Amino acid sequence: MKEIEKHICFGGTLAIYEHQSVVLNCTMKFSIFLPRQSLKDKIPLLTFLSGLTCTYDNFTTKAGAYRFAAEKGLAILAPDTSPRGNNVPDDEAYDFGQGAGFYINATQCPWAQYYQMESYIVEELNNLVCNNFPIIKDKQGLAGHSMGGHGALTLGLKYPDMFKSISAFSPVVAPSQVPWGQKAFKGYIGDNQTEWLKHDACALMNEAKNRANYPEILIDQGGGDDFLEDQLKPQLFAAACKNSGQKLKLNIHGGYDHSYYFIQSFIADHIKHHMNILTEKS
Amino acid sequence: MKEIEKHICFGGTLAIYEHQSVVLNCTMKFSIFLPRQSLKDKIPLLTFLSGLTCTYDNFTTKAGAYRFAAEKGLAILAPDTSPRGNNVPDDEAYDFGQGAGFYINATQCPWAQYYQMESYIVEELNNLVCNNFPIIKDKQGLAGHSMGGHGALTLGLKYPDMFKSISAFSPVVAPSQVPWGQKAFKGYIGDNQTEWLKHDACALMNEAKNRANYPEILIDQGGGDDFLEDQLKPQLFAAACKNSGQKLKLNIHGGYDHSYYFIQSFIADHIKHHMNILTEKS
Repeated sequence: MKEIEKHICFGGTLAIYEHQSVVLNCTMKFSIFLPRQSLKDKIPLLTFLSGLTCTYDNFTTKAGAYRFAAEKGLAILAPDTSPRGNNVPDDEAYDFGQGAGFYINATQCPWAQYYQMESYIVEELNNLVCNNFPIIKDKQGLAGHSMGGHGALTLGLKYPDMFKSISAFSPVVAPSQVPWGQKAFKGYIGDNQTEWLKHDACALMNEAKNRANYPEILIDQGGGDDFLEDQLKPQLFAAACKNSGQKLKLNIHGGYDHSYYFIQSFIADHIKHHMNILTEKS
Repeated sequence: MKEIEKHICFGGTLAIYEHQSVVLNCTMKFSIFLPRQSLKDKIPLLTFLSGLTCTYDNFTTKAGAYRFAAEKGLAILAPDTSPRGNNVPDDEAYDFGQGAGFYINATQCPWAQYYQMESYIVEELNNLVCNNFPIIKDKQGLAGHSMGGHGALTLGLKYPDMFKSISAFSPVVAPSQVPWGQKAFKGYIGDNQTEWLKHDACALMNEAKNRANYPEILIDQGGGDDFLEDQLKPQLFAAACKNSGQKLKLNIHGGYDHSYYFIQSFIADHIKHHMNILTEKS
């Protein structure tokens, strides 16, 4: 793990690291913000998963999260959205290949050799970060935006022992039912739609009936988001949560779009949401 | 003037516009944030001038200013840093030509036909913005970063009737005495160093002896800034302010560098500084 950038930010440090990923078979970068509280004590960690076309950089530079993370004493990890590099298979479309890993483990050729983003996020990168920084390993939250909102909801539901709190901005909640998800799942894991449902937040939540693992899940969604009707469909996740007895706070904000101007407007609420749950659990 | 992007942000709107500049002889872009208060009333305006290599986009996406502008009811204009386009003369260096207009009016060939950034900022763009948006024309503040900090201090001192409050992050305070400024002034306005002093914040402040136009000037500077010793030299401006009886708040923040991670850490203080002065004057 090599530090390639480091800045003081709100009294803490924002750093960019590069490391050789074994599961992704390529060199990866991530950013981590460590507030000054981490100099004295181990602190909780929030991992933020970004959306299509993004790298670690979009959240890092545009979300305006660090002011609140510094206030509350929360570390924030921003991973990349797919394996990267000239050797890694890619696709011309913005919604498949590099920049579009969908936080799943691919089984199809040629993707399977590199596109193992589920294992990367929940195992390799998480171990790397927890072993190298002052993180309380059992106080972790997971959040994300769009494709990364899909990642946050699905990985959260699949690994509830690891992620104690989850939230999302404008998530893809039912990838099996929308074009972005159908294309990605078909390409990465094949035609068997039963496999798709293992990575579909609505399917996972319906299946979780009466388990209701989380005190509350927070979703913020822009009412003026161009992708709302065709790709996002938050009402499907609301129905699944109702069906499973999972408490959900779904806020539809009139006029807001899919951009980081929307995320920065509500990121403070997400930091509070995670810290409330993570510190209640102590 | 053509709107090319518009986003709801903290209940207000962040928009990008393109317009044909007569003084710069090219097409220019700028961003403007209008908080929701502007729907009812005319509001104060802060213009933020960016540094070398930047466009309007850097401040717009990375400064984290709009949360506070929305709270306080302040509009923020972010102009580009030079004329732009394939027809506009350029230079391979990052500190001359496009991205490096230095907020002065060039007199030298081939720059003079395009590089008229002083006139652009204080006349053409300001009139365009004040005529098209609900701005209180006599409640304007000026801020900037690095080369833009030079712009904020010099244009503020030259046009005190226009800008009632000024502040800067990591400003070039004495361009006549440092490599960035000497190269730019020689290239844009020639060898006559008497001309240079008309655009040098320290020279202007020394000349302003006993005028002390501003209630207080605010400067934040990172103590770990790589450019501090060779290019920025804030102590020269502190001496000039003392000499002229101008109240200055100069904060040196240990460890912080020249990046937007520094700016976002202290931008709230600058919004407060401007609003305090602009609303006191009412």
